[in-house]
Amino acid sequence: MNKENLIYQINIKKSFLCVGLDSDISKIPNHLLSFEDPLFEFNKQIIDATKDLCVAYKLNTAFYESNGLEGWKSLMKTIEYIPNDLFTIADAKRGDIGNTSEMYAKTFFESMDFDSITVNPFMGSDSVKPFLNFNKKWVILLALTSNKGSADFQNIISKENNELYKDVISISSKWGSDQNMMYVVGATQASSLLEIRKLIPNHFILVPGLGAQGGNLKDIAKFGMNSECGLLVNSSRSIIYSSNGLDFAQAARASALKIKLEMEGLLN
Amino acid sequence: MNKENLIYQINIKKSFLCVGLDSDISKIPNHLLSFEDPLFEFNKQIIDATKDLCVAYKLNTAFYESNGLEGWKSLMKTIEYIPNDLFTIADAKRGDIGNTSEMYAKTFFESMDFDSITVNPFMGSDSVKPFLNFNKKWVILLALTSNKGSADFQNIISKENNELYKDVISISSKWGSDQNMMYVVGATQASSLLEIRKLIPNHFILVPGLGAQGGNLKDIAKFGMNSECGLLVNSSRSIIYSSNGLDFAQAARASALKIKLEMEGLLN
Repeated sequence: MNKENLIYQINIKKSFLCVGLDSDISKIPNHLLSFEDPLFEFNKQIIDATKDLCVAYKLNTAFYESNGLEGWKSLMKTIEYIPNDLFTIADAKRGDIGNTSEMYAKTFFESMDFDSITVNPFMGSDSVKPFLNFNKKWVILLALTSNKGSADFQNIISKENNELYKDVISISSKWGSDQNMMYVVGATQASSLLEIRKLIPNHFILVPGLGAQGGNLKDIAKFGMNSECGLLVNSSRSIIYSSNGLDFAQAARASALKIKLEMEGLLN
Repeated sequence: MNKENLIYQINIKKSFLCVGLDSDISKIPNHLLSFEDPLFEFNKQIIDATKDLCVAYKLNTAFYESNGLEGWKSLMKTIEYIPNDLFTIADAKRGDIGNTSEMYAKTFFESMDFDSITVNPFMGSDSVKPFLNFNKKWVILLALTSNKGSADFQNIISKENNELYKDVISISSKWGSDQNMMYVVGATQASSLLEIRKLIPNHFILVPGLGAQGGNLKDIAKFGMNSECGLLVNSSRSIIYSSNGLDFAQAARASALKIKLEMEGLLN
């Protein structure tokens, strides 16, 4: 999906919600365990119940890998199942030397047809660039993550008086453009979005950590929104695990709708 | 495998060689493609031909993931096949928020029984610590990688006048000990090992990039070896792709033997 189409989806749906399918076999409702592929069945019902309220789905690969071959099958079936007008994110946080990053890019962009993949910047330009050579595909680079430990290195201040995450953004933004790169900034770091927007006024920013991790939507929009919206805000656990019963999909819809309505207000 | 046992293996084999099974379906000999699982057959023959010459095998997950479900099967069969007296490394470069890193740890340490996994430090302490809670299992943290792009961020100098990779080492070495943490320092960065040894005199260091990437064994040993050896030096492409013919395993053995003999000299 290209940037123009993503913005179009946000405008017609009046939503910049990304639903995180961090689907954990030990947390999904019990009655699904009798299905042949419980993770896929869970995802399918969540997708059916939320696809008109969100513009993107993010699948954290850890939750699928941990389920072995069955998990990879569930991942592949899920990405096939998501309608084409929704932006898809492989939250894989990959990054390796050039020839290896290229293997990862082919896996997620060709074998599985994700629109985007999250990439870790630590290994530098030649670990990221192989992901940028695919038409209408995106790198979503980690900049300032939502976890506490993000402060350990991402906030280290350089001789030139820049936090590392700002160096990551300014240096890496030259490797691609706002048509094929986005950045991850955690919802718990909303106030930093003000400074970040000075560095990348036009790039989309993926903001994970709304809900379970404690991020606040009003602040994210206040500091991070640009004239094209420029935000995808992700919530995982607080949507998909809204109920543990037979009504789990309707309950997920209700949680997603609440966020979507708040987003509609913020977009106006 | 614990540290004591790893040192024992190095001493009896007179080798600190790690063979990188970066097994690429498009590069393995043609005659293997008729096997049911060509990647596993390739690995099996390479392992049989080299297991007395090396102390470790490193499997870069990208090469298996890129082959889809079949690739994961090959990975799992390979890790099962490697004898227990060889140290195994999942070169996966993972790292995510706490609950997600825990999922990755279970995948590689419990479902697959790797001895160690490479982890990316960018997200900080709570992304690394979940990997440290497993008995006789290791985190191998990226510090200074072998690729050109490593200079982009790993060499950024902080206000306190430290390169980022040095901060990564000094801060993270407090999260675990030399009994459950190693560091990655690329073979192309051998001269940096001198400074790094001042920070971590007792930790093992995994040095990838010998051969195809241009690292030099004499320098690595000169600057990086400690009284217990303290090094695992990895070579992938220059061993496993020594020949493209029916003799590929013998040719791999010959390449590994050449390195092993040089190592024997350096250990004396």
